[in-house]
Amino acid sequence: MSQRTLLLLSQDNNHYERLLKAARLPHLHILRADNQSDAEKLIGDAHILMAEPARARPLLAKADRLSWLQSTYAGVDVLLDASCRRDYLLTNVRGIFGPLMSEYVFGHLLSLSRQLPLYREQQQQRLWQSHPYLGLKGRTMLILGTGSIGQHIAHTAKHFGMRVLGISHGGNERAGFDQVYQLPALNKMLAQADVIVSVLPATRETRHLFTTDRFNHCKPGAIFFNVGRGNAVHEGDLLAALRGGKLGTAVLDVFEQEPLPADSPLWHQPNLILTPHNSAYSFPEDVAQIFIRNYIRFIDGQQLDGRIDFDKGY
Amino acid sequence: MSQRTLLLLSQDNNHYERLLKAARLPHLHILRADNQSDAEKLIGDAHILMAEPARARPLLAKADRLSWLQSTYAGVDVLLDASCRRDYLLTNVRGIFGPLMSEYVFGHLLSLSRQLPLYREQQQQRLWQSHPYLGLKGRTMLILGTGSIGQHIAHTAKHFGMRVLGISHGGNERAGFDQVYQLPALNKMLAQADVIVSVLPATRETRHLFTTDRFNHCKPGAIFFNVGRGNAVHEGDLLAALRGGKLGTAVLDVFEQEPLPADSPLWHQPNLILTPHNSAYSFPEDVAQIFIRNYIRFIDGQQLDGRIDFDKGY
Repeated sequence: MSQRTLLLLSQDNNHYERLLKAARLPHLHILRADNQSDAEKLIGDAHILMAEPARARPLLAKADRLSWLQSTYAGVDVLLDASCRRDYLLTNVRGIFGPLMSEYVFGHLLSLSRQLPLYREQQQQRLWQSHPYLGLKGRTMLILGTGSIGQHIAHTAKHFGMRVLGISHGGNERAGFDQVYQLPALNKMLAQADVIVSVLPATRETRHLFTTDRFNHCKPGAIFFNVGRGNAVHEGDLLAALRGGKLGTAVLDVFEQEPLPADSPLWHQPNLILTPHNSAYSFPEDVAQIFIRNYIRFIDGQQLDGRIDFDKGY
Repeated sequence: MSQRTLLLLSQDNNHYERLLKAARLPHLHILRADNQSDAEKLIGDAHILMAEPARARPLLAKADRLSWLQSTYAGVDVLLDASCRRDYLLTNVRGIFGPLMSEYVFGHLLSLSRQLPLYREQQQQRLWQSHPYLGLKGRTMLILGTGSIGQHIAHTAKHFGMRVLGISHGGNERAGFDQVYQLPALNKMLAQADVIVSVLPATRETRHLFTTDRFNHCKPGAIFFNVGRGNAVHEGDLLAALRGGKLGTAVLDVFEQEPLPADSPLWHQPNLILTPHNSAYSFPEDVAQIFIRNYIRFIDGQQLDGRIDFDKGY
């Protein structure tokens, strides 16, 4: 079998190079491009890319030998434009973000339900004072997206005694969920949810799924999480809902434009918590393992894990 | 069968009276004392008390007909002094605090590991900046106390991929724990723990279990939780350990003296988080259910749930 050239295009090139060389993968020649000019020089040699999608995108047109791109991220939407080529295998990383996303969602949810910032202030004032709270038991969480991330969040919610509803494309039963519905049921489900968590990818179907009309169906005290993709939410409508009491609190890790522009009114909305798109992180050890498994499949001519359907967008 | 008189001595008397009357328990006459003078008047009639331990204690000597006291709290240590009478059945509430304690521990743990207060500050400064973090996966939690509370925390930790060690009186295997050891192994276990959680009750054996010598065995970055009883920790030694870098952070919900005195140096220790003994709460619905089950057993002459052994102290 002939040699294959892998080009690394990531902020973690060092790490990946070390891990993949140690794995001694057969017939694999590993190159790395740490800057734009190296990338331009080397892209024509690459049969395989292991890359952050945004780094790969401007190089795709020159990748004459490309047959497979392994994204180091879950989100690959920048590679799915109709204007981008689709004549190669695109895989993303899956199955490693569930626990990290659960940590993010439940860290924030419990911090809110137990009012940790308030007790922090009270401590500074030497104030010993308890405030009533409810446990998570018996409350309802609605999760949009029932893949591996949604399932891990669902299992965590069940562990804390919550009722868990899901929304997915197919509406099929999934472990951890009490019920799964399709999109047309969304408004009815929103009316029951104390906590709403969107883990949806960016597709045409999910763009601006959350508008004023949706927020009008929510419980006034509900907590809304977006840890999927920013464009699922109309940010102006979300702000209006937060200001008008249609929603209790929003926790956003993703935005229509990232980094969030400094003049965005989201920054200073009191009942909105925002983080810089870091609810989950592609730890190089995990991503390298996925690549290694996929490379063995690749040279064996088998189906790759995490393959993206360019039409569906996930 | 003759009538039994129950006297309610709690801040939630209203709630309990309504729930217990609705249950129409046979042969039960329900009285309530909402203040000290009512309590003094009625205590002599009571066969059964449903009470907060600290409210019951000064009245015990006058409770001539007392045969059973159902505590509305888990902690009954104020009733265990050698000076207190022991000629009655004492039961506490168990099995309802596990989920609430897990919420507290993991709310704080995830808030720390994901640096939520830092991102809150960054948001105020409109700063989009990510900081590295580790997931909980693969980290080690040591839990002191392997009863129902310890077990729930252990299951939560396992759900997040942690390794879970336990310390208990008997050292017996327990669901959720990878290994359980007896007290003599504590120092060795402390050296392995990234997170230490004490859910120990107040007994002679556990008094000042955590002193400078213990903290010297901890990992320098370890997070120490006390959600059991305050006297398990020597607070002066804990402060010294936090100041000297022997421990990373402490999260305390319980103290040697409560409310924590305004002049305690604990209030202003930067790497110490404190809350006013509210990590779990006796929701009246849950406590009333426990009482109802126990009352049926009581009139049937069966063993009560949550019975305290005055010698062991739990």
